[in-house]
Amino acid sequence: MRDLPFTLPALREAYAAGASPKDVIAEVYRRIANVNDPGIFIHLRDEAEAESEAESLGAFDPAKPLWGIPFAVKDNIDVAGMPTTAACPDFSYDPEADAFVVARLRAAGAIVIGKTNLDQFAAGLVGVRSPYPIPKNALDPAIVPGGSSSGSGVVVAHGIVPFSLGTDTAGSGRVPAALNNIVGLKPSLGAFSATGVVPACRSLDTISVFAMTVDDAYAVFELATAYDPADAWSRKIPAPPLSPVPPALRIGIPDAASIEFCGDDVQKASFDATVARLKDMGAAIVPVDFTPLYAVARMLYEGAWVAERHAVIEDRLRDKPETVHPVTRTIVEKALPLTATDAFRGIYRLKDLIRQAEPALASVDLLCVPTMPTFYTVADLEADPIGPNSRLGTYTNFVNLMDMCGIAVPVAARSDSRPGSVTLLAPKGRDSLVASLARNLEVVAGRTLGATTWPSPALSQAPNAVSVRDDEIAIAVCG
Amino acid sequence: MRDLPFTLPALREAYAAGASPKDVIAEVYRRIANVNDPGIFIHLRDEAEAESEAESLGAFDPAKPLWGIPFAVKDNIDVAGMPTTAACPDFSYDPEADAFVVARLRAAGAIVIGKTNLDQFAAGLVGVRSPYPIPKNALDPAIVPGGSSSGSGVVVAHGIVPFSLGTDTAGSGRVPAALNNIVGLKPSLGAFSATGVVPACRSLDTISVFAMTVDDAYAVFELATAYDPADAWSRKIPAPPLSPVPPALRIGIPDAASIEFCGDDVQKASFDATVARLKDMGAAIVPVDFTPLYAVARMLYEGAWVAERHAVIEDRLRDKPETVHPVTRTIVEKALPLTATDAFRGIYRLKDLIRQAEPALASVDLLCVPTMPTFYTVADLEADPIGPNSRLGTYTNFVNLMDMCGIAVPVAARSDSRPGSVTLLAPKGRDSLVASLARNLEVVAGRTLGATTWPSPALSQAPNAVSVRDDEIAIAVCG
Repeated sequence: MRDLPFTLPALREAYAAGASPKDVIAEVYRRIANVNDPGIFIHLRDEAEAESEAESLGAFDPAKPLWGIPFAVKDNIDVAGMPTTAACPDFSYDPEADAFVVARLRAAGAIVIGKTNLDQFAAGLVGVRSPYPIPKNALDPAIVPGGSSSGSGVVVAHGIVPFSLGTDTAGSGRVPAALNNIVGLKPSLGAFSATGVVPACRSLDTISVFAMTVDDAYAVFELATAYDPADAWSRKIPAPPLSPVPPALRIGIPDAASIEFCGDDVQKASFDATVARLKDMGAAIVPVDFTPLYAVARMLYEGAWVAERHAVIEDRLRDKPETVHPVTRTIVEKALPLTATDAFRGIYRLKDLIRQAEPALASVDLLCVPTMPTFYTVADLEADPIGPNSRLGTYTNFVNLMDMCGIAVPVAARSDSRPGSVTLLAPKGRDSLVASLARNLEVVAGRTLGATTWPSPALSQAPNAVSVRDDEIAIAVCG
Repeated sequence: MRDLPFTLPALREAYAAGASPKDVIAEVYRRIANVNDPGIFIHLRDEAEAESEAESLGAFDPAKPLWGIPFAVKDNIDVAGMPTTAACPDFSYDPEADAFVVARLRAAGAIVIGKTNLDQFAAGLVGVRSPYPIPKNALDPAIVPGGSSSGSGVVVAHGIVPFSLGTDTAGSGRVPAALNNIVGLKPSLGAFSATGVVPACRSLDTISVFAMTVDDAYAVFELATAYDPADAWSRKIPAPPLSPVPPALRIGIPDAASIEFCGDDVQKASFDATVARLKDMGAAIVPVDFTPLYAVARMLYEGAWVAERHAVIEDRLRDKPETVHPVTRTIVEKALPLTATDAFRGIYRLKDLIRQAEPALASVDLLCVPTMPTFYTVADLEADPIGPNSRLGTYTNFVNLMDMCGIAVPVAARSDSRPGSVTLLAPKGRDSLVASLARNLEVVAGRTLGATTWPSPALSQAPNAVSVRDDEIAIAVCG
């Protein structure tokens, strides 16, 4: 059990061979103790209680796709029986019900282990904006763990659980994946119900999935996605199976004038290598001017949308400002002088920027970007709590404002052994397309999973063709 | 020429028989003089100039569907060579180019006669909020002309031009139609480009069409609609030809508990008669609770969206408040205390209300409502400039916030001889469906057109079937 890679196929195989979920749960807690990072969980479930739930599953039921699978949940998502804090102790409440998505996963047989740490109220990409102990990056404790889904990223990277739930507004489901050498799947907005989730920016939030492999992340996506009439932002988003990608995809990348690595040439070399891989696979690479996308990205924290964050904690900021993390306070207070007129002007500007970007985006099937331009250390953030965070969002902040889906996927390690990661992005509804291509990238990466020594997966048998355009059927090419 | 009904088929027939556009233009100006209402036009084109443009058309060109057709344009829509005032003289500017929609209509051979009066900055449903002389209702000068497209409604009702352009945010393209016994077509948002239009609420505005008949209004719709990359709000909206409607449409009407006539039993009887007609035609009538729709309606002026109006005249309100109509000022100043946080909360509430209304709306193909609950006189508005205006918007204010298309169509005159009108509404993209059904209603109305003695049209030959659902093809039934 100690050597068992915690991926869905490995666990399913173990269960089919007679492993007991109680033993798997015991191994989860052994690994937690072994990792010994008090920053990962805000609330760790009592081990006996988790084992008791595992035992209550009875005999192995292969019809339940997550039977006996342990997972962790970011602490801005409700799990009945555990407090929800959003990393603000004074905000803590005891939810009566599981969040809609959590309930679906539990119904599929999964077992919640605990609630993970985050940048308070999910405002940040660094993971150090929490009053709880800061989770350590799973690969290098000097580097930030990434946020806001810090604990959910780190817990998967250590192989403690095969998947976790994060949330993603500005990139909180992608940046921790890049920093911890794992997969971060950010669904199309509305694919995952927000019922039982503490909002960050309600119009832009989504639950996200961290996993070691694309297949595992997408399996969770398929199980979790469902239309929820109780959530006004829920939408019917297609979730077809992963499939071979068409050979001649047109893939947009930031053009030479607009690509940004903040001076990190190693990151540039890593990205260039991935682009070369994509060309080898038959893709046509299309340089795209990212200037309008960066302008959109800046609107998230520097424009009207910060008022959505203010809407969540307005009373708290006024009545109990001391309960809000000082950096979070600085950010959210930017909403105070903004008028409703400013908000609508922001919406107009967003529309104009999207229109500006449209011709280039319409000319490609998807985008490939570095998940982040460079790495920052915990010390960098202590010196400047805002600037590095903003730069980490270069390739993530515009995504939800532009209604795209995306997946951050590890590629080969950089020449300095830091993890390589790119994000594939496409208009909403193409979750299957970006994941299908991400799968091809991960198998050629020749890496180990997360912070473990487990090898990356081999490409398993490939199913049907994937449609890359809303209005046409792509030709199936099995490779 | 004096007796020629100014409808598109009658004018086309006259041109085909050799009539001269110069003579038609001369007749337009004769009718203007005859009607003698100085409130209709803010800028009337010089007659000689209009005649000169008519002569420049050369020989009759049946390939140009609007060859030699005179029309009028609401004075918040640009026409090159005429000032745009939005009914605020101090706001006046000389546009260099025609609005996108005006240019398309002129390219089809139409001739602009002048710019029509409106409630200043298109804020109102009454037509009396203008510093220019108030247009008189074409049927009864005691009654308000309706607004904000007051002049564009009245000028068509008098038979001066066969069609005109209005705009519609809260109902400005529908209420004047009801008050003047004509058709008011309000397209799906984005079907008509907003390039060259003074915004009212930019996210909710559309140009609209007034005409004597549904066929004429829809013909203009088909010619004017086109995707405009320069307008960030432009969308690709289908514009299939009018067609026979399926026999068993499910038509929602306000249920007994939520229907509102402000005590006007004659209006209620008129509406009931139309509902009986629809039943006779084979429709299934489905009572719908309109409570959430009314809550949406109230958000337009009493909620966050008034900030969109403020965005248009913010500088003017601050620097030259005396140039703004006092009633308009009172309305738009409601935006001053609203914060960006309030704006997003408004957006959340709208989403929730739309979700509340969805199950009922999803159960019907379209809605039929009274265009307005009752009539108001100019004296009523002098006594209370706000209340009657709000009540006129009962069945119109929610429509653009809910992304619906609609058409106001005259039905049989009320028992007191005031004009009868209903509006058919459907989700965006069903412009053809609502117009096709409206056409069936107008032919059974047995009325005269506008304020003229011209008879209502006979139902001409009917083309192909119309699809009533996005996801299915309706069965063709020619009747």
